[in-house]
Amino acid sequence: MPKPLQRPMIVTLLTDFGTADYFVAAMKGVILQRDPRIRIIDITHEVPVHDVESAAYVLFSCYGDFPVGTVHLAVVDPGVGSARRPLAIAVARHRFVGPDNGIFSYVLDAAPDGEMRRIDNPSLRREPFSTTFHGRDLFAPAAAFLAAGGAMERVGAEITDPVRLPPLENRSVAGAIQARILHVDRFGNCVTSLRREELRGRAWRIRVAGIEIEDVRDHYASGTEEVPFAIWGSSGYLEVSCAGTSAAARLGIRRGDRVLASLA
Amino acid sequence: MPKPLQRPMIVTLLTDFGTADYFVAAMKGVILQRDPRIRIIDITHEVPVHDVESAAYVLFSCYGDFPVGTVHLAVVDPGVGSARRPLAIAVARHRFVGPDNGIFSYVLDAAPDGEMRRIDNPSLRREPFSTTFHGRDLFAPAAAFLAAGGAMERVGAEITDPVRLPPLENRSVAGAIQARILHVDRFGNCVTSLRREELRGRAWRIRVAGIEIEDVRDHYASGTEEVPFAIWGSSGYLEVSCAGTSAAARLGIRRGDRVLASLA
Amino acid sequence: MPKPLQRPMIVTLLTDFGTADYFVAAMKGVILQRDPRIRIIDITHEVPVHDVESAAYVLFSCYGDFPVGTVHLAVVDPGVGSARRPLAIAVARHRFVGPDNGIFSYVLDAAPDGEMRRIDNPSLRREPFSTTFHGRDLFAPAAAFLAAGGAMERVGAEITDPVRLPPLENRSVAGAIQARILHVDRFGNCVTSLRREELRGRAWRIRVAGIEIEDVRDHYASGTEEVPFAIWGSSGYLEVSCAGTSAAARLGIRRGDRVLASLA
Repeated sequence: MPKPLQRPMIVTLLTDFGTADYFVAAMKGVILQRDPRIRIIDITHEVPVHDVESAAYVLFSCYGDFPVGTVHLAVVDPGVGSARRPLAIAVARHRFVGPDNGIFSYVLDAAPDGEMRRIDNPSLRREPFSTTFHGRDLFAPAAAFLAAGGAMERVGAEITDPVRLPPLENRSVAGAIQARILHVDRFGNCVTSLRREELRGRAWRIRVAGIEIEDVRDHYASGTEEVPFAIWGSSGYLEVSCAGTSAAARLGIRRGDRVLASLA
Repeated sequence: MPKPLQRPMIVTLLTDFGTADYFVAAMKGVILQRDPRIRIIDITHEVPVHDVESAAYVLFSCYGDFPVGTVHLAVVDPGVGSARRPLAIAVARHRFVGPDNGIFSYVLDAAPDGEMRRIDNPSLRREPFSTTFHGRDLFAPAAAFLAAGGAMERVGAEITDPVRLPPLENRSVAGAIQARILHVDRFGNCVTSLRREELRGRAWRIRVAGIEIEDVRDHYASGTEEVPFAIWGSSGYLEVSCAGTSAAARLGIRRGDRVLASLA
Repeated sequence: MPKPLQRPMIVTLLTDFGTADYFVAAMKGVILQRDPRIRIIDITHEVPVHDVESAAYVLFSCYGDFPVGTVHLAVVDPGVGSARRPLAIAVARHRFVGPDNGIFSYVLDAAPDGEMRRIDNPSLRREPFSTTFHGRDLFAPAAAFLAAGGAMERVGAEITDPVRLPPLENRSVAGAIQARILHVDRFGNCVTSLRREELRGRAWRIRVAGIEIEDVRDHYASGTEEVPFAIWGSSGYLEVSCAGTSAAARLGIRRGDRVLASLA
């Protein structure tokens, strides 16, 4: 069998563009025009419109599963064409390309020693250049450049002050941790912001949506539809779930809802 | 032009994960981390949540169109983390990886001499290993291993008793065949479980949703919106259709509905 | 790094098949069976059912961003199995494969000197051959043949009279241009049929959905939710937008609605 390439030449895509329009295809075309060897993998295009925080969570939850050297192109960009800066970041042996609006915050919180550059090399532009679709006209060429082995220093000037979202950290109060619902997944599992290391070695129960939960299961099918339970999810956060049905629908839980963990 | 690779190194994905979460992307990342040369093709991620039978039908309808040697990774897995076994199957010159819950039943019904193994080689695990996402932590590494040329014997111990769904066979009664609706497609065509060889050389009419149909068309546009007709569909089953509109919506047909074929 | 292939061997897919059924996967399988080196890129599978005009617009808006030599396989095909011809077209250094129903009209309007052939080479068929799924059984093999370097002359006999949709041109009337809404995108931006060259150097205002707009912005975020504005979109057409909300929903605009541009 032939040897693998040294560098994987992978670009992932994460947008709020949906898949009905030509937007995602145009970005892929531009990448392949720059280098047809690049492998393109969709993370998702169903980020809720303009929801930078949701995009940041999804990217943070899966980027580390990709090979070292992957370029992650993330475009949720309500400020396209405005003064917001276009960014390229090298951190944790991955590269990231997208608008400077906080979309890479959670990656940077967990891996802070990144090299960050404003994309201002004019050769990294599709012509004609629009003010309304930088995903195609600016970010896709920059991602292709990096994936094909281009150097970060050639992308543009270094910056040190990227826009940041509030971190995913919880607030400790007397005998308790104030947390929140980060995400509701397709199955209706409600991902809280509680991490294992915060609760390790303590007895605890959580309160969310007016109910208390202290039952912890180790797989979804061991619970019942009727009684919600807690479970350590695949991204390292505690989830609230019901077996075989949507906990979010059953309990009326939505993203952003408060969660209180009481420690014994 | 360069010669094709001997082995295509293709992994298809079929899940009920949807495409809004990070789940599918994480699986793809894990596969590419194991071997970045692998080609990944989505079959669908829109299987109704936990609907193993629907997944089995979709997989059965298209796996044979892929090149010999393709690995089909199918994860509709309500029992994730429980005692249900993780399976790898080599049959019909294809390989299949997924939970032992019947998802490969229709493939096995049609091509029974498979080699089936429980995935228990600990090197085929992503670490950290979760109890809630075996698609990423167990099945994706196993699929990548097989796609990259790994041997079935190294996956784990042989088994002979996989979980099976009821077969797609119909029941013959006096002068008639009792069948059912297997699937309703995007166009509202209603796929019955009647196969061409069951009806060949006989005069017949079918009854479904309270109406009788004996008109058989050979392409969709030859019928009308008003009058439903039967047509031999692309997966080899008889379908109930209306031209230019959804037969399912017009007739109120749903998956599982009974179909009776009366033979003359 | 290895040199890029001379020819990119890319096939794009554009259909109204959705992604829940096995249809798209079967087409991809057939392509890879013919040549596993071919790269397959989805444009979209969410074209509204049987909406040839919408498919033509999406294809026209992005095909040019793909590398020269790309094969674009577009199947929105209510007449599958009927007398409508299967087409292969070489034009503008791209190739196109799909039904002869107008789906390539806008490409041909903009790049008229194409070579057009009816696909009738019997070796370009999947067997068994159905009358209901030419995407899999006829168009996918033909697209794979061309992507792998096959010659247009071997596809079938030349034709000169493909089916055409009405062109995207507007009608000029005294001091005004009668145009229409071509498309509403995921963000609710309403793409009109007005092109920059039609309005260049003139003062103008447009009327759509009972309101007048003369405010032209150069990026979406510079406007407000309350006041709709016009903006030159990424496909070269004038759009009607609101910042941070759907102009289509706010103004009740739908595809096909009339737009009148009054010139000063």
